[in-house]
Amino acid sequence: MFAQLARPFFAELDATMRQVVSRIPEDVPGFAVMLHYALGWSDENGLPYHQATGKRIRPLLLLLCAQAAGGRWHTALPAAAAVELLHNFSLIHDDIQDNSPTRHKRPTVWKIWGEANAINAGDALFSLSFCALEGLADSVAPSTLLRVWQIFNATTLELTRGQHLDMRFEHQPTVSVDEYLSMISGKSAALIAACAEIGSLVGSEDMAVAAHYAEFGLNLGIAFQIRDDILGIWGDPNVTGKSAATDILSRKKSLPVLYGLSHSPELASVYQRDTFTPADVTEAVALLDRLGVRDYTQQQETFFYRRALAALENAQPRGEAAGQLMQLVENLFGRAY
Amino acid sequence: MFAQLARPFFAELDATMRQVVSRIPEDVPGFAVMLHYALGWSDENGLPYHQATGKRIRPLLLLLCAQAAGGRWHTALPAAAAVELLHNFSLIHDDIQDNSPTRHKRPTVWKIWGEANAINAGDALFSLSFCALEGLADSVAPSTLLRVWQIFNATTLELTRGQHLDMRFEHQPTVSVDEYLSMISGKSAALIAACAEIGSLVGSEDMAVAAHYAEFGLNLGIAFQIRDDILGIWGDPNVTGKSAATDILSRKKSLPVLYGLSHSPELASVYQRDTFTPADVTEAVALLDRLGVRDYTQQQETFFYRRALAALENAQPRGEAAGQLMQLVENLFGRAY
Repeated sequence: MFAQLARPFFAELDATMRQVVSRIPEDVPGFAVMLHYALGWSDENGLPYHQATGKRIRPLLLLLCAQAAGGRWHTALPAAAAVELLHNFSLIHDDIQDNSPTRHKRPTVWKIWGEANAINAGDALFSLSFCALEGLADSVAPSTLLRVWQIFNATTLELTRGQHLDMRFEHQPTVSVDEYLSMISGKSAALIAACAEIGSLVGSEDMAVAAHYAEFGLNLGIAFQIRDDILGIWGDPNVTGKSAATDILSRKKSLPVLYGLSHSPELASVYQRDTFTPADVTEAVALLDRLGVRDYTQQQETFFYRRALAALENAQPRGEAAGQLMQLVENLFGRAY
Repeated sequence: MFAQLARPFFAELDATMRQVVSRIPEDVPGFAVMLHYALGWSDENGLPYHQATGKRIRPLLLLLCAQAAGGRWHTALPAAAAVELLHNFSLIHDDIQDNSPTRHKRPTVWKIWGEANAINAGDALFSLSFCALEGLADSVAPSTLLRVWQIFNATTLELTRGQHLDMRFEHQPTVSVDEYLSMISGKSAALIAACAEIGSLVGSEDMAVAAHYAEFGLNLGIAFQIRDDILGIWGDPNVTGKSAATDILSRKKSLPVLYGLSHSPELASVYQRDTFTPADVTEAVALLDRLGVRDYTQQQETFFYRRALAALENAQPRGEAAGQLMQLVENLFGRAY
C-alpha cells in the first residue's frame, strides 16, 4: 500500500538525484562509485545494485508537503533530492564516527574505502546537496529560493550541533531529558522539520503556512526518534532487522536508558560494568521494565506525535496529498514495537 | 608593508567571521571551542590565542577583487568570510585524512579532540560557510547572489574532486602532469579562482568581468601550488617553517617528484624502498637536481603566473585596489625558494 503510494514520486526523485550526482565528472576514477554505493545505486564495484537501501522517507515527506500546501510536487524535486543527499552525507560521516561496520546489511563506505575516502565522499554529498537545491531557481521566486536556502543552511548547522551532543553524551555520566530532546531536535528532527517546511514553502510560497508544516515536521521527527529508541530496546528483531535490545548492548544513551539511569541506581551500577554480557543486557531490560520506562517513553512519543498532528491540522493540507501525508505518518508509526 | 595593507580588511573580516560562527548556540558545551581553535581565535581551552595562524590570503584576494572590479570591499565581506570558513573546513578534514599531527605549529583538531569530533567540526565550518554567504542578500541583487552561490557550490565540489585525486595519487605508481594539474585545479586553485570570481562579481555584478577574474584566480592558484611544490623540496626551512625536502620525506607526488619519477628510473627505484632514510632523501634531491627538475618546475610556475597576469590585465582592475592586488600577488610569489 505504502510502496504503491511512493512509487511515482521515487522514480522522478531518483532521476533528479542521478542528474545532480552526474555533476561529478566521469573521468575521475573511483570517485562517483563511492557515492553511487552509498545511495544504493551500485555495489562496491560500480555494478547495478537492486536491493532496497534507504527508505527515502524525507524526500517523500517533502514532496507530499509541497503538494498538500497547494503546489505541484514536481516543482519541489530539486529540494527533495537535496535533503536525501544531505541525509546520506550525514550517514556516511556518522558511520565513521560511530565506527559502524554495516548499514542496510552492507559494509559501510569507510569499511570498504577507508576513513579518509569516506570523509571525502560524505563531503561530496554535502556539496551535492547544495548543488541539487540550485534546481529550484527555475521554478520558484528568488525570495522563496533564498528562504529555502536559509532553512537548508540552518538545518545543516543543526545536524552538526545534534551530532556533537550525541557524541558528547557517550562520555557524560548523566543526560537530562531536556538535553536529550535538544540533541534529537538537531540530529534527527531538524531535517524532518526542514522537509515539511521547505516542501510546503515551495508549494505555497507562503511563510505562515510553512511555519505550521515546520512545527508538524519537528514534532514528527522527535516522536519518530523516540519510537526508534523504544524499538532499539523492545523492538522485535524480526521486524527491526537489528538484534534484540541493541541499544542496551551498545550502551546508547537513548531516552529510555537515560530516564532509567536517573531513576534506578541499580541500572546505573549495571551500566558501570567494564564488560557487558547478554546477562547484563537482560538484567538492564528487566530493570527498565520494572520501572515502567517503556510506558513513560511511549507517553513521550504520544505527546510529540499528537503535537505533530495538531500542527498538521493547523496547516490545513489539501487534496489527495493530504490523505497521502496521513498515510505516510501512519506508516512511520505503524511499525510494530 | 603587506601586513599594513591587510590590516583594515582583516579587522572587519574577523568581525564578520565571528558573527557567523556565533550562530553556534553558546549553550552547546565544547562545540564552538573547536571552531575557535581551528580559526586561530582561541587555544584548546577556549582562552584567547594571539599568535598568527592562517594567512587569510583567500578572503583578502576576494575583497581586493571586489574593490578593483568597481565595488566596495565592505559589500563582499560575507563572501570573504565564507571562503575562509570553507578553507578551514577543508584543512580540518585534510589533517585527518593525511594523519597530520600539527598545523601552524599547534596540534591539529583531530589530535586534540579525536577524529569523530574533528569530522563534525569540519562539517560545522562547511555549514557555516554557507551561512556566511547569506549575508550578501542584503547588498547584492538576487540574480547576483544566485550566481555567487552557484560558483560557491561548484567550488565545494571541486575541492572534493581534487582531494579525491590527491589521495588516489598516493597509491598510483605514476601520475601524469595533466592528472596533477587536474588535481591541483580542484584541490588548490578552484578556491582561489572562486575568490577572484566571486569578489569581482559582487563588486561589478558583471559576469564578463568576473570571468576574467576567474581566469586570473585559477592560474594564480595553479602557479601558487607549483611554487609550494618547489618550496616543499628546495625551500629554506628557516623561511618555510617546515623541515628541508619535507615533500620528499613524505613521498608526496608533487610536480617535481612525478616529473622526476617519469624521467629517472633511479629515482623510481629510490621511491620504491620500504623505508626512507635521510640519505635516501638527499639522494632523491640530487637526482632531481641532476635532471634539471627544479628548472622545469619553475618554468611551469612562470607559465601559469604569466597567464594569471595576462588575465588580470584583461580584467582591467581599477583604483587603489588594482595596486594592492598586485602587491598581494607579488607578496605571494616573493617568498624565497
